[in-house]
Amino acid sequence: MALHPPSPDVTAPASGSDRPRTFGTIAIVGVGLLGGSLGRAVKSRGLARRVVGVGRNLARLEEAREAGVIDVASTDIAAAAGAELVVVCTPVDRLAADVIAAARGVGERGTVTDVGSIKGAIVRDVERAGAARTYVPAHPLAGSEQAGWEAGSAALFERKLCVLTPIEATDPARVDLVDQMWQGVGMRTARVSPEEHDRLLALTSHLPHVAAAALAALLGDRERSFSSTGFRDTTRIASGDPSVWTPILLGNAAPVRQALGRFERELAALEEALAKGDEAEVTRWLARAKASRDALGEL
Amino acid sequence: MALHPPSPDVTAPASGSDRPRTFGTIAIVGVGLLGGSLGRAVKSRGLARRVVGVGRNLARLEEAREAGVIDVASTDIAAAAGAELVVVCTPVDRLAADVIAAARGVGERGTVTDVGSIKGAIVRDVERAGAARTYVPAHPLAGSEQAGWEAGSAALFERKLCVLTPIEATDPARVDLVDQMWQGVGMRTARVSPEEHDRLLALTSHLPHVAAAALAALLGDRERSFSSTGFRDTTRIASGDPSVWTPILLGNAAPVRQALGRFERELAALEEALAKGDEAEVTRWLARAKASRDALGEL
Repeated sequence: MALHPPSPDVTAPASGSDRPRTFGTIAIVGVGLLGGSLGRAVKSRGLARRVVGVGRNLARLEEAREAGVIDVASTDIAAAAGAELVVVCTPVDRLAADVIAAARGVGERGTVTDVGSIKGAIVRDVERAGAARTYVPAHPLAGSEQAGWEAGSAALFERKLCVLTPIEATDPARVDLVDQMWQGVGMRTARVSPEEHDRLLALTSHLPHVAAAALAALLGDRERSFSSTGFRDTTRIASGDPSVWTPILLGNAAPVRQALGRFERELAALEEALAKGDEAEVTRWLARAKASRDALGEL
Repeated sequence: MALHPPSPDVTAPASGSDRPRTFGTIAIVGVGLLGGSLGRAVKSRGLARRVVGVGRNLARLEEAREAGVIDVASTDIAAAAGAELVVVCTPVDRLAADVIAAARGVGERGTVTDVGSIKGAIVRDVERAGAARTYVPAHPLAGSEQAGWEAGSAALFERKLCVLTPIEATDPARVDLVDQMWQGVGMRTARVSPEEHDRLLALTSHLPHVAAAALAALLGDRERSFSSTGFRDTTRIASGDPSVWTPILLGNAAPVRQALGRFERELAALEEALAKGDEAEVTRWLARAKASRDALGEL
């Protein structure tokens, strides 16, 4: 995959000559697609001495351990207490509670980070619980519409962007530590405020999910049999799990509604040009969209 | 690629035991992505004795001839007059005129078909010109956001659906002939009215293009650097050429506006559920979309 256009606050991945920092124990809470991919990436790169996986289903965790995704399996978050770094990869509606529990467990000795798709609501909850100093809010922009650690891969994070959203209360040394972990698995990193993150992701992730879902929902069985490749690409993310996406959309409702408003104004402009039969305006509208999409690179 | 869910009026591709009919000369008017792919497919399958390519740029046509896409190159549509079958692959805003010219050229000896993404407006123009009897309106649901014969492939049509939209004036024997040609290059075929085609394609192709374009248009440079794989998939088709898409959207304006209205009502329902913080309703909305997308098969 081509690199995204760099933004001024995006750092390059650690180069070969600048060997990544290694960690003692990394605990992964929630061994699903992201947690499982992180386990594989950390182990394949020798980034930690030990990877502890914490989850709710011991049989599934044992399978992940046998597959080499983690070294130790436990259903008790207390198993993460000795870790230098705890990465919470649970669904968005459980994240704040798990981050707070992990932060209490590791205390001053450890650092807690997460992979949540929304940041403002989680950061507020963690701050209210007095656990903000040792928690580095993060969101690696990687994933797929699939679920489960089997669907993951050590390469999932490579060359992609991880957004860190520290607040004033966050310990700066811990931000650097988490930054090094994500660079260690091949990511570029950027730092923005939780609010800016949520505004940006509403436009680049949450709104596209809603639009894809609405397109898919419109088709009945007959319409569906007349769809082609373009429809499949455009709606692929609509297969995402509603139990993952409901808390994301509700947890970021204000920015998502704002993005929806902007989207609807774009559609209304095109609709007006169609109603008028205004060829120049339709072309201008499409050309602006094409220029923006082409600027992403890689068709 | 998995087969789309069959609809009752979709026929299977010709089986091995049922050898496809071969043609004398097939003329392709407009040797771009679709015309070039058709040339390659016809020649690689030995479906015609000769493939004549007609276009506006002789140097480009000669390159296509040297690449084995066509056998004969000409900038004069009169070169198509001796063909058993003329397939018009020019842009939608030139289609009706080219179909009419080709139909006059081949007269009763030949059959004319096309690959246009809209059907009603073109069929009406051809009928008004008195050329409807020998013209079989068709739309193979294949393509990409790329352009030019170099981007084409002999496999482009395989297992995909070709929609034929004959009207009362169309000669039924010629519909069967064109049906055999598209099955001969590996397509399934279906027959619906031009109006039904335009309503279906507004939902499965034109609206998704507009939605993808609107999503892409919303991003500035900063937002763009925070986009990930899902955004790329969802907006890929927005890279399509505005000169291709403007006549499609304007030529099918009423069904597209109707589809836009349905789309906006879907979005408004989600927005209302978000405004109310109605978790059950957001989940229900997303689950309905996921079920529809999953019914397409192949993630």
